[in-house]
Amino acid sequence: MTLSVHSDEHFMKQALAEAKKAFEEDEVPVGAVIVWNKQIIARAHNLTERLNDFTAHAEMQAFTSATNHIGNKYLNECTLYVTLEPCVMCAGASFWTQIGKIVYGASDEKRGYLKTNPEIIHPKTEMVGGVLAEECGALLTEFFRKKRDK
Amino acid sequence: MTLSVHSDEHFMKQALAEAKKAFEEDEVPVGAVIVWNKQIIARAHNLTERLNDFTAHAEMQAFTSATNHIGNKYLNECTLYVTLEPCVMCAGASFWTQIGKIVYGASDEKRGYLKTNPEIIHPKTEMVGGVLAEECGALLTEFFRKKRDK
Repeated sequence: MTLSVHSDEHFMKQALAEAKKAFEEDEVPVGAVIVWNKQIIARAHNLTERLNDFTAHAEMQAFTSATNHIGNKYLNECTLYVTLEPCVMCAGASFWTQIGKIVYGASDEKRGYLKTNPEIIHPKTEMVGGVLAEECGALLTEFFRKKRDK
Repeated sequence: MTLSVHSDEHFMKQALAEAKKAFEEDEVPVGAVIVWNKQIIARAHNLTERLNDFTAHAEMQAFTSATNHIGNKYLNECTLYVTLEPCVMCAGASFWTQIGKIVYGASDEKRGYLKTNPEIIHPKTEMVGGVLAEECGALLTEFFRKKRDK
């Protein structure tokens, strides 16, 4: 299958590439990109272990990076692609940014924001879940299996 | 009244001093300190305007600073003092840190985490609200009145 260069799947593959970097660095493999005017303006992967800091989730870094890039702390014209359903912290941050759209890959039934309250997301933010969910989830499963078998 | 140097009021006054710095910098006046072993190990105030970044809430910076200080991303032996009830993002971040106690000043009925879901906070985190609430709230009221009258 050939992917349109502007499809959700195309950009999720870029987020997955970020997640794979996290995997290689022994970080929980979650990756994110932010797209504005059809271009990636921020790339990030989870760095909580390296930075010893829970606020270093992929999405948080991507928000900071994107707002720096466009010089505006509102991201209403942007789309976040992230390989895992955002947690409450990241969903709460997305509320403040009023980001236009969030596309996530795998669901996170344990720590995802949906379990807590779907209305954490800003009412103007379009949500799309399940894009390349299997690939995004498989990377996480492999990571935790590897950890367990150590 | 003489305050014990280890009372909640004492440390909230320190958080208020941070909030006043924010006020002087034309930032929404919210301040925070984190205490470990009866000592302040992190001080921060809201910097969302200067950094053009919604993730720069006082609490988020304080979490990062405190984890750097103690070399552990878990803050279960620490107490966060913050002048305003945490928002969903900051409460979500506190969940990850498993912080021992959170003491806040004024309530935030519009954007506070309680409205969304009180269970955002980690079950091991003790919550205390309303410490120096009047002073903490008055600073915010003054800030927004000044903004409105401009």
